[in-house]
Amino acid sequence: MPRKSASAAPAPAIMEALPRTAAAVVLGADPAEPQGKGRQTRRAILDCALQMAGRIGLEGLSIGVLADRMGMSKSGVFAHFGSREELQISVIRHYHALFEAGAFYPALEQPRGLPRLHMMFGRWLAQVSREVETGCIYISGAVEFDDRPGPVRDALVHMVQTWHDALLRAVRQTIEVGHLRADAQPEQLLFELHGLILALHHDARLLRVPGSAQFARQGYRRLIGHYATPAGQKLLQALLDAAD
Amino acid sequence: MPRKSASAAPAPAIMEALPRTAAAVVLGADPAEPQGKGRQTRRAILDCALQMAGRIGLEGLSIGVLADRMGMSKSGVFAHFGSREELQISVIRHYHALFEAGAFYPALEQPRGLPRLHMMFGRWLAQVSREVETGCIYISGAVEFDDRPGPVRDALVHMVQTWHDALLRAVRQTIEVGHLRADAQPEQLLFELHGLILALHHDARLLRVPGSAQFARQGYRRLIGHYATPAGQKLLQALLDAAD
Repeated sequence: MPRKSASAAPAPAIMEALPRTAAAVVLGADPAEPQGKGRQTRRAILDCALQMAGRIGLEGLSIGVLADRMGMSKSGVFAHFGSREELQISVIRHYHALFEAGAFYPALEQPRGLPRLHMMFGRWLAQVSREVETGCIYISGAVEFDDRPGPVRDALVHMVQTWHDALLRAVRQTIEVGHLRADAQPEQLLFELHGLILALHHDARLLRVPGSAQFARQGYRRLIGHYATPAGQKLLQALLDAAD
Repeated sequence: MPRKSASAAPAPAIMEALPRTAAAVVLGADPAEPQGKGRQTRRAILDCALQMAGRIGLEGLSIGVLADRMGMSKSGVFAHFGSREELQISVIRHYHALFEAGAFYPALEQPRGLPRLHMMFGRWLAQVSREVETGCIYISGAVEFDDRPGPVRDALVHMVQTWHDALLRAVRQTIEVGHLRADAQPEQLLFELHGLILALHHDARLLRVPGSAQFARQGYRRLIGHYATPAGQKLLQALLDAAD
């Protein structure tokens, strides 16, 4: 395999739709993040590791292969991540930071209620659609680590739970502002929204079914439409029209 | 690790709800199945391998470890499966045969339309619920092999596709007999039913969310209820009442 320089490592799919500044802000917030050149190198290693993990799984990550792909020495990579486990956890955190920058922070700029929830789901769906070729480490990691207790599983659960909690808050606010009926159960809605995303990932990646994203969108419309108040129905239609 | 005799290998979760005769019929239908004692041994190896695959993945299967767990020699296991790849494919076929015996054949005894579709979904859900502790090799295998071309992936896709085709046929029949509206799209319904199962598997296994099966059932009721004709609504209610 030809050695690649750090800068030649292609960016993971999750970064495609991400403004550079947003990524910088989010990544800057990581307390483990060093400054200056070390930070750039760490970032480049993480981008490369994230790309590898999407293809071969978090368990497939090896400091040796990673060093080889980065054109670095093993000890050079070790200087940034003291162990393979720490590397795996850092990759999960890196993915999460990119995911939040792409799907969560932009939605916070939308008004509370359906506009915000709509953008969160839309960005999540777009994210997983882009990852059809590269794999989503939340989804593949869930299967890899669901029965392997330890710090990597804990990190993964924490990140997935953080995103689920953010969605739950958004659903609750959508009920509070009167766009969804008061009898809508936030946990039920989250479960079904998540199901649509998982089915999209499965069908597009394993079965190569065309139009999976369209099925997910259609499921979303019916789900939200079912629980929407009259005001919410009107708003949903306006949001869908604006996207067409 | 203490050696276990072949008979001591616990049965995989998929077999728990399965009548012995049904399993025998289905497994007897496998053209690769030898007769007599060889068949029993092959079956015991497959049960053990399936249990291992649920925990550590199909890629984790090793003839050496399997032989060790079965108290057999490596060459003894090799005599049944010429290669690790053949073993992986046989495990997928074994799982599929058990799955069909548990979820598909009993449903064929139900009348066409909602009664049959209802039983297929109910048994699928029950199956995945039982597998919360052991893992479902369709779901975990999908993530393991979605980007690894080859005969194992092909076998997995074929089995998953066979089950999806059976569900699609059942949905189409449910429309034909007038329990679902003519404008219901079978592929859309299948996509959403599958999403409910995937969300159940994810939440129960990774997040250990209690009540996931109840969320899946509730999603099913709303989905079928949405597309049901008045006759279908009545039948759905009767089927749900009968289960309570």
